Parts: sequence; structure tokens; C-alpha cells
Amino acid sequence: MVTEEQLKKARDYNYLKSKYPKDYTPVKGYDFSKSFDFKELLNSYKTTGFQATHLGIAIDLIKKMREENVTILLSYTSNVVTSGLRDVIAHLVRKKLVHVLCTSAGGVEEDIMKCHKPFILGDFKADTKELYVRGMNRTGNIYTPDEWYVEFEKFLLPILEEFYQRQKKEGKIVSTPELIKEFGEKVNDEGSIVYWAAKNNIPIFCPGIVDGAIGDVIWFFKHKHPDFKIDVSDDIYNLSNLSIEAEETGAICLGSGLPRHYLLNSNIFKGGVKYAVYITTAGEGDGSTSGSKPSEAYTWGKIELFKPYEKNSVLVEGDATIIFPLIVAGAFII
Amino acid sequence: MVTEEQLKKARDYNYLKSKYPKDYTPVKGYDFSKSFDFKELLNSYKTTGFQATHLGIAIDLIKKMREENVTILLSYTSNVVTSGLRDVIAHLVRKKLVHVLCTSAGGVEEDIMKCHKPFILGDFKADTKELYVRGMNRTGNIYTPDEWYVEFEKFLLPILEEFYQRQKKEGKIVSTPELIKEFGEKVNDEGSIVYWAAKNNIPIFCPGIVDGAIGDVIWFFKHKHPDFKIDVSDDIYNLSNLSIEAEETGAICLGSGLPRHYLLNSNIFKGGVKYAVYITTAGEGDGSTSGSKPSEAYTWGKIELFKPYEKNSVLVEGDATIIFPLIVAGAFII
Amino acid sequence: MVTEEQLKKARDYNYLKSKYPKDYTPVKGYDFSKSFDFKELLNSYKTTGFQATHLGIAIDLIKKMREENVTILLSYTSNVVTSGLRDVIAHLVRKKLVHVLCTSAGGVEEDIMKCHKPFILGDFKADTKELYVRGMNRTGNIYTPDEWYVEFEKFLLPILEEFYQRQKKEGKIVSTPELIKEFGEKVNDEGSIVYWAAKNNIPIFCPGIVDGAIGDVIWFFKHKHPDFKIDVSDDIYNLSNLSIEAEETGAICLGSGLPRHYLLNSNIFKGGVKYAVYITTAGEGDGSTSGSKPSEAYTWGKIELFKPYEKNSVLVEGDATIIFPLIVAGAFII
Amino acid sequence: MVTEEQLKKARDYNYLKSKYPKDYTPVKGYDFSKSFDFKELLNSYKTTGFQATHLGIAIDLIKKMREENVTILLSYTSNVVTSGLRDVIAHLVRKKLVHVLCTSAGGVEEDIMKCHKPFILGDFKADTKELYVRGMNRTGNIYTPDEWYVEFEKFLLPILEEFYQRQKKEGKIVSTPELIKEFGEKVNDEGSIVYWAAKNNIPIFCPGIVDGAIGDVIWFFKHKHPDFKIDVSDDIYNLSNLSIEAEETGAICLGSGLPRHYLLNSNIFKGGVKYAVYITTAGEGDGSTSGSKPSEAYTWGKIELFKPYEKNSVLVEGDATIIFPLIVAGAFII
Repeated sequence: MVTEEQLKKARDYNYLKSKYPKDYTPVKGYDFSKSFDFKELLNSYKTTGFQATHLGIAIDLIKKMREENVTILLSYTSNVVTSGLRDVIAHLVRKKLVHVLCTSAGGVEEDIMKCHKPFILGDFKADTKELYVRGMNRTGNIYTPDEWYVEFEKFLLPILEEFYQRQKKEGKIVSTPELIKEFGEKVNDEGSIVYWAAKNNIPIFCPGIVDGAIGDVIWFFKHKHPDFKIDVSDDIYNLSNLSIEAEETGAICLGSGLPRHYLLNSNIFKGGVKYAVYITTAGEGDGSTSGSKPSEAYTWGKIELFKPYEKNSVLVEGDATIIFPLIVAGAFII
Repeated sequence: MVTEEQLKKARDYNYLKSKYPKDYTPVKGYDFSKSFDFKELLNSYKTTGFQATHLGIAIDLIKKMREENVTILLSYTSNVVTSGLRDVIAHLVRKKLVHVLCTSAGGVEEDIMKCHKPFILGDFKADTKELYVRGMNRTGNIYTPDEWYVEFEKFLLPILEEFYQRQKKEGKIVSTPELIKEFGEKVNDEGSIVYWAAKNNIPIFCPGIVDGAIGDVIWFFKHKHPDFKIDVSDDIYNLSNLSIEAEETGAICLGSGLPRHYLLNSNIFKGGVKYAVYITTAGEGDGSTSGSKPSEAYTWGKIELFKPYEKNSVLVEGDATIIFPLIVAGAFII
Repeated sequence: MVTEEQLKKARDYNYLKSKYPKDYTPVKGYDFSKSFDFKELLNSYKTTGFQATHLGIAIDLIKKMREENVTILLSYTSNVVTSGLRDVIAHLVRKKLVHVLCTSAGGVEEDIMKCHKPFILGDFKADTKELYVRGMNRTGNIYTPDEWYVEFEKFLLPILEEFYQRQKKEGKIVSTPELIKEFGEKVNDEGSIVYWAAKNNIPIFCPGIVDGAIGDVIWFFKHKHPDFKIDVSDDIYNLSNLSIEAEETGAICLGSGLPRHYLLNSNIFKGGVKYAVYITTAGEGDGSTSGSKPSEAYTWGKIELFKPYEKNSVLVEGDATIIFPLIVAGAFII
Repeated sequence: MVTEEQLKKARDYNYLKSKYPKDYTPVKGYDFSKSFDFKELLNSYKTTGFQATHLGIAIDLIKKMREENVTILLSYTSNVVTSGLRDVIAHLVRKKLVHVLCTSAGGVEEDIMKCHKPFILGDFKADTKELYVRGMNRTGNIYTPDEWYVEFEKFLLPILEEFYQRQKKEGKIVSTPELIKEFGEKVNDEGSIVYWAAKNNIPIFCPGIVDGAIGDVIWFFKHKHPDFKIDVSDDIYNLSNLSIEAEETGAICLGSGLPRHYLLNSNIFKGGVKYAVYITTAGEGDGSTSGSKPSEAYTWGKIELFKPYEKNSVLVEGDATIIFPLIVAGAFII
């Protein structure tokens, strides 16, 4: 039997005397009763709570990067380029709204493959066997037919040949940033990221360049020319130099993996990026770099430790295909 | 050493002869080079791939629900009401754009608590001890001070007293939908979901009503009146009747848990909802109902099995605070 | 060009002077070179890092609960009972190793359905349409044929009839804990949780009892007897009383959802559970109660706030089907 | 009002005539009433459902790899080596139980750093600022003090110097597998993966080698010797050759990211790995390679497409620190 005293204590436990906070930001969602205003919708995210609030903070941080003329480093994983976000990034690069790019092999080659023909919208649940038989490679709900890879090989081989000849004649080993720049100069398509990066002198870093179709073609190529080499040391050399030479840097990271880790790691040498925006679906529980939160990056000196710290970074949990267009609209466009 | 034959086979494996698909939807992202148009942005999601495509499908499915005058059932978990989405749902209920609601105890009581004062925007990483000492209960990055619960008790006790008197005099046990309707009639706040639900005769179902502050107050109350009862059988009775009587039904499910399971389960009796839109962050790996995908619901007869099936449902992975306002804008507003 | 000074600063940033910590626990994995010893494997988890460490802490906390004779409250979601963990829980209840149970409707009814025949091991990727046509309801990779539900109705109807007769004659409304106790007395199967719970007087709380097959049968039943009622107020009344009357309590929570929230919430009145072990796959990003971490529960007073706090709780991320048998072995058996 | 006919139909919908399946595997959990037997526990996982079943399948598939003398390729992300699993992998390599390794830069360098001193067990929730000030770099709940990195530089610089001299004298550019092999020959620690890999001639592939501390030291080094180069083309060349030359291959992938993608991609050329076991926490929703399931790999020809397909692969969702020791015990030890 519960006693009177226990009941009294229960009340005390349940209703701790809480002092009214004097200043506070009220939680408030978008007001759909007024005539619709997209800018207001974006503003309302900040007070909606949970990830919507993080989205609002992300827009604010990127606005600050722009106002303070910070050098903006953008990292993106391969799937970002598989998706329609490739077109969004191409726009940012074309307009010089971002200044340094880090990506994985797929983030380079799929951009080029899309110059051949667009990728195909499909279904996560499509029949595995049927896709295989039809030569339709599936990435989530997007298909890339084998044909695209055949085209890509046609594009890549002469470039490899060219650098191989230079290696033979001048002893100069091609480096990854150099190779990607050459892609941009050859690709001749205004929809492409590498095209605009080359044109606007925006470097693309990609140490894992052999992990994908580029690697496949190199493998074939090396069976003819086993002495062909690709240098990866200039990739880190140039990236870290750039990070240090930039007065201040800000990071926008779409997905995580190698590209995000690489971008952030290169900024340890300058005391960390000044601002960081992460968009990711990964969780921190297994200790992977993909799931790590900004709070982890601070301990490594990858993000500058403000006082009070953790106000110069934000992680928006979710799929960048939904979130990034909203951020671009809010921070770069309207 | 790799042989010539192996090399040849490698080529075959790598470049399967893929037939050109004749008709296909190209993957394409939003074109930021044109002057910004929110409607176009929403349209572009459909061809952006991954969850953006699912978002686009969700908008289409809800548009169909509306065009076909389907009875729309909306389920939402407690945290949805903690967030600013409470204001979005209140709008939908006020305008009678949704017709039946399923939620958890928190989804009812926090709507009422917000009539006292708004909740407070905070931080996921706030210091635990400091919050406890200040009586600031944390839900993600939103705080609800204890004071709000004190106010809620003041609101609830006279209502319980009233129903208890009725029980004593007329032998009528209050049911959960009846109790919630009474809340709506007493709350007198145009920002509230239960207010508009009562006004517009939109029923709210909540079998788990004692799991939260309502239960806490009932516990105190029963120490005075141990014979007080709340019936939960009319909750399922009325919900299932409504689902059957509705010619056709469509489900919009924000978060998962009990509210989504309950809503969908009640539609087995009519052969399943005609359309279903899920928004959730849960994964299917542990077999929980929260993480289950529409493909699971089909096997139970919760969603009608079309031919070809699985075109009448979609799951958008992500946090509803970002996603739902976009869906409401696209399917109900613009 | 990077200057000498910048290089020097880079070194300083990269190699902060770190003092050697004097005492520390080294990260160390299991040593497979010795002859295999399961107890050693469990011990090694604690120093393996990431979730393995959390698993080790979970075992320690439950050992403490047992040593200190704390009242152990176990919550589990429906899918736990769908899986083979049902047999593990039945063992714990039979041996009185846990003392109070909280679950959802599925957690009650599927235990009973398994007394008819075991559930069927299947595949997450099985063909949706084929399963539907065969009446095979899928929960993850487990199937429950419709037949089981037919049997369950045969089991449930006479019990409802019995309580309805009592209601008519004596005016006594059946409560949810009472109903579940009756299930346990009727089920007559030593493999069952409700059987042993009834036998050993271990109460089962389940406010959401109408959310599932029990609710379905009640719906049919009420079409004959619309005045039949089920009281849910005694569920919270008894649970909170038990929590308060127990000198000290500890929580083990398999999955989250309503059962975990309900269990923890009932302990606010006593100043919180002394120890808490969560096993879950949900993330905290969307503010849902399912994804909330112990740090959130402290702010509500659901877990007792020790100094230093957060040493009396742990969250093990992952699927309980893998993790819980290890915990049971380590904390209850060997 | 629900009609008699609707009620009848409701029964039909709810209780579809399901034929009894003649043969089926019953869901059954471990029987803790018998005296404890670890082998039985492992066996019971297969019939427990959800991820436990996947764990059971993973053990079976690896047993098959071993029985059929398949060449086993093991990929692991950096965090795996940060954790105590480094000791487990070192054992497998020492005993030649796996035959080819793919990892990321951290997976190489942290193995070497641990030869200096073990890493430190910490807390996910540790104070960010305090850790930073103390030079304690956090990876999940594991710390690596800066000192370890200072030691690592001392280890690496002479090796770089050596290869640089060779480059100057013989014109031979060091490749990534060659560099890692040299690490193994210099490290002289029987606890180390690279040590045993060098000793047992088990190659380690790591195209992203400059993404981490190795890259940092190279960056410093190149300020003295800007013409120093590292070739990454032999990494893909050797890995793909090995995959083709192996009669049959099987993949065990701890975590995902670049290492898993790279390992699987190299097997397209031979028609795919014969068996694949994934352990990961990533979800497929955002189309990232990290979250992709085996069903995606089949479409690319990365896993051999059996009839019936998808029986030669499994994905176990969860943290490898808990899961992998169980798999090693079940498939390699007991």
C-alpha cells in the first residue's frame, strides 16, 4: 500500500520546482494559415525542433561562411553524384560558390558518365535477377546501365594513354588532382561538376580514385602498360596546403566516409575549420568515422573549438537529396 | 598471372551487354540557375533519387487521396506534437483536411500543455544534471519545464472529477475517445489539435492514454477514488467501425510505434487502406513494427494489394520535422 | 606557399602536448590464441570498445541489480516475443529472475499464439504477394499464418464471455492486468511467458492492449455485446504502486516504444530506477521516445541521478535477438 | 453502423484461409533451462529470427568458404582496428585464416600505433573541451592521445626516407601495398596485423592511404622532398589480379565504406565473389555504398548470382565489436 508520505514524495519528484526561464526560444512550426511563403517556411524550421532546427542552423552557418568570405570546402560521397544533387553541385561550382571539392572515385566518374546520358530512376525493391540480366547496375533506386561504363572507358583510355606517354617521355607521374583536372578539360558538358571545376580552377581531391570504374579501366590499361603509375601524394600535399593557405575555412559535408574525413583531417594543420555542416544518415554507435558527430571532430582539432564550443557546427540527420536543396536555396539563393 | 582469356572474360563480366531501355525517367536535380520556384523544387524531388524521390511519391499519393475523397487517417507519435509540427497538424484538423487521428498519450497531453505556454527550444547535448536541477525535461532538443505539468494537472483533475461523478450517478464509464473529446471542448485555444478535433467532430484514438502525464494524474486521482475506471474497448470499437464505414481510406503516418500500427491494423477488416504514406527514421532490421516497411503491411492485409502492388504506398526515411511541412505544402496547400 | 611558420604551427596543432594518463583501461579484444572460454569472451567485450563495451557494462549493471536485490522491471516490444527471445523471457519469468513485465498487445498475444504452434522462420525479402495469398503475415523474417489468429480467437472469446458475464452480474469491469493474468491461467503451456507470470504472480502491464489481435477479437465481440468494457486505469495504478512500494528498482528494456516509456515513467514517482539497461536500434535524432538515450531519461527523473551521474545506465545499440542472450548468459546464468 | 455483411467480410479479410505449410523451420530461442553450452547458443541464433538468424547464416557461409577452400578476402574500416577487434584480426592473419585484406588508412596506421601502447577506453559522452585540452582524440568511446601520433611519425619518417632514396637512385616509385608490407617488416610486434600480414605474405590493399596520419606525415615530408611520390595504380592492379587468379573468393566485410566497396568491385572481373558476409550499421535509404545490401551488389556482378540467388550472402545489422567475435568463434574456432 502506498503511504501518504510516499504520495507526497511522488508529487515532489514529479513536479520539481522549476523556475520560469526568463528568455527562451519557443518551439513553433510553420503557420500554414497564411498565404504560403517559402522563405518563411525555411525560417520556421529553426523553431520546429529536432532535425528541422538543425537544418535551420545549417543555413545560418553557411550564410556566415559566405558573409565572412571563408573558403568553402565541399565533400560529397559517390551516391550524391548518382542522384540529382549532381546538378545542384555543378551549379555551385559553376557560380564559384564553393572553392574546394573532396569526393570518392564514384563522385568523379559518375559525373562524367552522366555527360553521356542521364542515369535512370528505378526502385529500391526491383527484382535483383532481372536487373542483373539487363545489365542494370542498381544504386538505391537509381540504375546505371553497363553501356555507360563502356562509354566511360572510351573517354578514359585516351587520357591514360596521354599521361602514360608523358610519363615515358618526361618522367612525370600523373597525380590524382591533375588527372581529374584533365577530365574536366575533356568532358565538354556544361552540366558537369568536373567541367566547371576545371574551368573555374576549383580543385577536386580524390585519393581513393582507383576504387571504382576508373580503377577498372586502369587495371585493363596496366595489362598493356604495367609501368604506368598514378601518384596520390600530391593529393594530400595540395589539399593540406590549400587548407592552410586559406585564411579561414568552412566545411559542407554531404554524406560522410572518406571524403568527409579527408577534408576535415586536412584542416587540423590550421587549427580546424571555422564552421562545419554535416549532412548524414550514419549513427555514432559503432565508432565509425562516418557516424562521428562534430563533438568528436573537436577533440581531433578538425573543427575550431570556440567558446562556447559547438556553436560553429551542426549535423543534420537525414538524406541529403531532400535536405541539401533546401540548404542551397536558403544559404546561396534566396 | 592473369591470362588473356581471363582478361577477356573480365571485360564480359564488367560490360554485360545492356540493352538501351527505351522509356525511362532520367535522374535530374533541381535547376538552381533559373529564378527560384518552390513548386518546381518540389517537382524536382521526384527525379532526384533516393529519399527525395520517395518524398515526391508521398506528395502524389496524398494528392490522389484528396482527389478521390478518400477518408484520411493521420497517425503521429508524441514527439511530433512536442515539435512545431503540432501547429501544422492543428491547421490540417482545423481545415478538415484529415479525418481521423491516432496518437499516443504524449500526443494528446503535450498539445494541451502547449495551450499554457510554448515549449522551449534547447539542445540535444545540454548538460543532463543542470537540466534536471532546473526541472527542465528534455525531449531531443526541446524542453518542457515541470511547471507545464503542474498546469496540466489543474486542467485534468476537474475533468476526471466530472466523469467520476457521472460514473457514480449513471454507471457510465468514460472511454478514451470521449475523454479526449472533452479535453478539446475545455481547452479553448485555437492553436490546439484537440480543440479543432472536438469542434470539427474529428475523432482522436489513443488506447495507450495512461502512458504519460494523463496516467500520472489518474494515478494520483485513484488514490482518492480507487473505483474510477477508463474504458479502452470503445477506442478500438469506434476506430474499426469508422475504418469500415469509410468507403476508402488513406493513411499518413508520422513516426511509427503504436499509433501507426493501430491505425493500419484497424483497416485489415476492410481489406486495407487504399493508400499509405509512412515517414519514419526506424529501420526494419530488428523486426519491430516501428521499422516495418509497407511490404510487411501488405502481407497482413493492412494496405490493399494492388496489381502491380506497392505502387500505392511509400516510406520516406527521415525526420518528419523536415519532411512533413514539404509534404503538406505540396499536397494540401500549393 | 606554406611558410616555415605555418609548418611549425601545423606541427603544434597536430601534436598537442598530451600528458600521459596515469591510469587507464587499455582497449583489448578477445584473445583467440588461447583455448576458447565463453566467460572470457564476455569479459573481453568490456575492453573491446564501442557497443561491445556497452554490452559489458549492461552485464555488470544487471549483476548489481541482482546482488542488491533490486526489483527488476523488464519491458519488451512485440517483436521480441515474435522472435525466439520469447523462450528466453519465459525462462526468466519461470525462475523469478525478473519481477514486473511491461509489454505491448503483440507481446501478450503472440506468446499465447505460440502455445498453438511455433512461428515460422522466413525471409525479409520474401515475395509480398505470395505471402499475402498464402495468408502468411510477415514480421521481419518471421511468419505468422492466419491460422494462428483463428486459434487465438477460439482461446480469447470464452474468456471475454466470462468477464462479460461477471460485468453484467457483479458490475465489475475487467482491467488489463486482470485479463492478462486470466490468459496465463488458461494457457497451460510451460513454454509461455503469461503462464509463468500467472503462476509466479509476476504482473504484466499492457495499457495498449487493444492494439492488435486482442483488439480485433474485442471488436467482433462488442458487435454482440456493445456494453462490454475494459478498464485501463488499474494498469497504471498498479504499476506505479508497485514501483513505489519496491525499495529499489532496475529496468531492463528490450526495444523501446510504449513498453519502455511506460515502465520508466512509472518510476518518476519514486525518484527514478536505480539502474537502467536499454537495448535498442532506434536513434535519438527525431526526438522520439524510442530513440531517446538514458541522458534524456535523467532529466525527467526516470533514472536516478547519481554523482557522477550516468554510471548507472547504459544503452546497447543493436538487435536484442543477438545481444540479449549474451546478457542473460553473463548476468543470470554463468 | 457496420452491417452484418461488413462483419462477415471483416472476418474473411482477417482470417484468410491459410494452408498449413508442410515443412517449416520453427522460430525457437536458446533454452537456458539446460546447462549452458556456447555452441548450442550459437546454433540457437539461427532459429531466433531477425538479426540473430542472419548471424547464424553468416557463420554457416564462412564455414562453407573454409570447407571449399575459397580465398577469403577481409575488409575492415578504420574503427574496427581502433577497437579490440584489431586483436581478433591479427589472430586470423597470423593463423592464415584469411588471405587478402582491404582497409582504410586508419586501419593501417592505428594497428601500428597500438604497437607503441594500447588505446584508451573512454566514453562517448566525455566532455569535448576537456578531451581537446588534454590532447585526447576521441573515436566513439576510445581515445588516442596525440603522443601515439608523435610515435607514429618517428616510425614512418625513416621508411619514407628509405623509399625516397630508392626513388632518387633507381627511379622506383613506392606503391601502397609495398609501403604497407614494409610497415609490417619494421613493426616487430606479434600483436599486429601488418606484422603477420608481412610474415605470412598476406597482402593489404589501401588506396586511400593518404587519408589520415600517414597522409599527415607525408605532407610534412613533402615539404622537404616535394618530388616524393606514392603510386596507387598497383594497388588496384594487384588486388584485381589476385581476385581473378583465385579460383573462388569469399568476402567478409566489417563495416562498409571504401574498403568493402573496393574489395567487392575487384571481384566483378571474375563474376563476383562466391560468398559474401556483411556486418554493418548503415541503412540503404540514402543510396550510399555503405548502406547498400547484397541485393544491390548482385546487380553489379559483385556477388555471384546463384539460383536461387541471395542464398550465398547475408548482411548482419549491428556493431561488429559484438558480432564479429561470435562469428569468429563459430566459424573459425569451435
